[in-house]
This record gives sequence, structure tokens and C-alpha cells, in this order.
Amino acid sequence: MTTFSTAFQKDLTQLMKWRRDVRHFKTDPVDEALLQECLDAFLMAPSVGLSEPWRLIRIESHAARTAALENFKAENDKALTGYRGEKAALYASLKLSGMAEAPVQFAIYCDDGTTKGDGLGAGTMPETRKYSVVSAINLFWLAARARGLGVGWVSVLDPERLGRDLDVEGDWTFVAYLCVGYPKTSSDHPELEQLGWEDRRNALPILTR
Amino acid sequence: MTTFSTAFQKDLTQLMKWRRDVRHFKTDPVDEALLQECLDAFLMAPSVGLSEPWRLIRIESHAARTAALENFKAENDKALTGYRGEKAALYASLKLSGMAEAPVQFAIYCDDGTTKGDGLGAGTMPETRKYSVVSAINLFWLAARARGLGVGWVSVLDPERLGRDLDVEGDWTFVAYLCVGYPKTSSDHPELEQLGWEDRRNALPILTR
Repeated sequence: MTTFSTAFQKDLTQLMKWRRDVRHFKTDPVDEALLQECLDAFLMAPSVGLSEPWRLIRIESHAARTAALENFKAENDKALTGYRGEKAALYASLKLSGMAEAPVQFAIYCDDGTTKGDGLGAGTMPETRKYSVVSAINLFWLAARARGLGVGWVSVLDPERLGRDLDVEGDWTFVAYLCVGYPKTSSDHPELEQLGWEDRRNALPILTR
Repeated sequence: MTTFSTAFQKDLTQLMKWRRDVRHFKTDPVDEALLQECLDAFLMAPSVGLSEPWRLIRIESHAARTAALENFKAENDKALTGYRGEKAALYASLKLSGMAEAPVQFAIYCDDGTTKGDGLGAGTMPETRKYSVVSAINLFWLAARARGLGVGWVSVLDPERLGRDLDVEGDWTFVAYLCVGYPKTSSDHPELEQLGWEDRRNALPILTR
């Protein structure tokens, strides 16, 4: 039984506390070996039936980055029209993506057509394949933060348009667009909380049956 | 900028490597304060627009546990009929849930109707609320493993039947059934790999655009 020290447990809590969804990145490049260390988290992530359905596309070219950024801008403008008054002004002031600056960017997909794992565990809940991808992203997120890198998850995107622009295979489902790089600032409070959009709960209600 | 030591980074890798989906639990009770420490991970988890849509139901009563276990057994029997020959024999030999033994059990839901976060980030991808729940589960999973506890995620269940049996509100979506307790064994290899169901990849292919 591999055990972990109390000191490690405390540091892990600090890591979770200081992990952030980063939107403000320095443009400094990320060392490829360091990035690879973080990406190794995908190889250790849980997946339903060992299906490992995550598919990564690194967004490098000017054309692909521009297409993704334009996609975000269009959807962010649309989202703004859904708010009124103060909330609209606040939304307009938020920076919801670091896509213009982050040196490393990935579009993460789920291969729902994978035969790996032979469907085990996904019969009644095929969505668990996408949940496996999300699980891997979270391990990557923590591994990156532990190494001083920040990760920002952008969801204000039209998945269909992104798939067309990136020439993605038919049965892959878009799960997340990740920006990776060195964060400009560090905080133990989410930016949305700092800027007054929403508070975090300080207790977890649990029902009992 | 809060930084983490190289020693911590290595321990974090070990944690990810030794985290397991546990199906073999001891029946020893789990200290409530220890469990609470693990559950605190939910309060630190990322969520789209700070919506914090996770909803936990602790499954305690004999009636609720029996209903959940019967649900699993029925769906597991059905799943078996989808395999033939050697694969069927192997599937039949697998233990895919610790529901009969695990001292602590949760059904985890997503409240898709929550107004918390005012829909930010979920406009084009409402599924990100469920992904937030999955993110929190993964943080809980690591926090538990760091404290010697094991977590098993059961997905071989009929969500609709479970919702009826647990008398769950209409707009909550079932995400995961978690078994929690002290694991009987410890390994850095997934049980499905040890038993020959499926191998893990040892490299992560990445496309570029």
C-alpha cells in the first residue's frame, strides 16, 4: 500500500486551492519537456473500461489559432446579448479566454467511436467516455499548476464551427479548448469571484437517502 | 506566485500513478472527519461560470443501497449478454462494483437547472455543467487516495431507475455512483489491465493543426 505523508496531503490541498482557470497569460514559451511531463497525466487518468478516448489536437498554425479565436469572439459577443444592465456591463468587462496570448493551445476531443475497452462500463452511460476525457484534463491541469504553468478552459465556442475549421473526424466530440502558459498572476480565489460575478459556496450540502 | 517543490511534483505523479478505480473494499468504517477532508475538494473544484452544479446524495439506508445494488446487478447482467466467447467469460469474472462492501457511497448528480453563475460559459456547451461535476469528482478522488482511501466509480447503472428509487428532483442529471472506503489491495496498474481486459497506452498521440 503506497502511502502519502501528511505534508503531501497539505500541499495537495494547497495545489487544489491555488489551481485557477487562467485567462491572463505571459507570452513566454513553455519548455517542451516540461509540457510533456504535464501531458503524461493523460496516461495515468481514469477512463471508462480503459477506453482512453481522449484525442488531442495542438493548435499551432496561424490559420487554426485565428479560426479558434474568431469563433470565441463571435460566441462571446452572442453571449453578451443574453445579459442586461449591470450584469451585461460586468460580462463585457470579463476576459474569458487567453487564446490571444497563451503560447500553447489544445483542442481536446472525445472519440465516441473508439473500440478500445470494448464498451465496458459505457453501455447505459455512453457519456462516461466524455467524462473520462474531462478526468484526464483535470489531472493535466493539476500537473501543470504544480509546475508553475497555468491552464485555462475555454467553453465559449461553437463546437461545430471549430470542428469544421480544424478538419476534425466525424465521430469525435469537442470537449474543451485549453490554453496553457505561464500565468500573469496567482490567487487562491477564482477570477469570477474576485470580479463579483459569482461567489463560491463555503459548504457542501449533502442529501441522504 | 505559490510554487510547489520538485519533491511534491514527484509525489503528485505517484499519486496519479497509484490512484485506482477500486472495486474491492474492506468493510472498515471511514472516519467522518477524514471523509469531510476529502469532500472539501468539491469546494475547490473548477466549475463553469462558478455554477458549482454538483449535488451529492449519500446512500445510507438499507432500502437505498439495495435498490442501487439491484440496479447494478440487472444492468451488469444485461451488459454481459453483449459479449461472446472468451470476452463474455472474462466479463463475467470481473468485479465491476464495490457496492456490496463499500462503507460510504454517494450518488452524484448535476443540477442542470441551477441559476448559479448565470449561465456564464455554458451557452454553447451546456454539457460543461456536467463536466464541472466530473472535475470535482476527480479532485475528491485524488484527495481520498492521498489519505489512504479508495474510490470506485460505478457506471453500470440505469440512471432513470436510480433517480426514481432515490426520489431525485426532475432536472438533476445522474453523473456517477461512487464507492468509498479502504481498498483491499494497492497497485499502480488498473485492474482491467491486470486481468487482461484492455491495456493502457504508453504514449499520447497528438495531432497538430
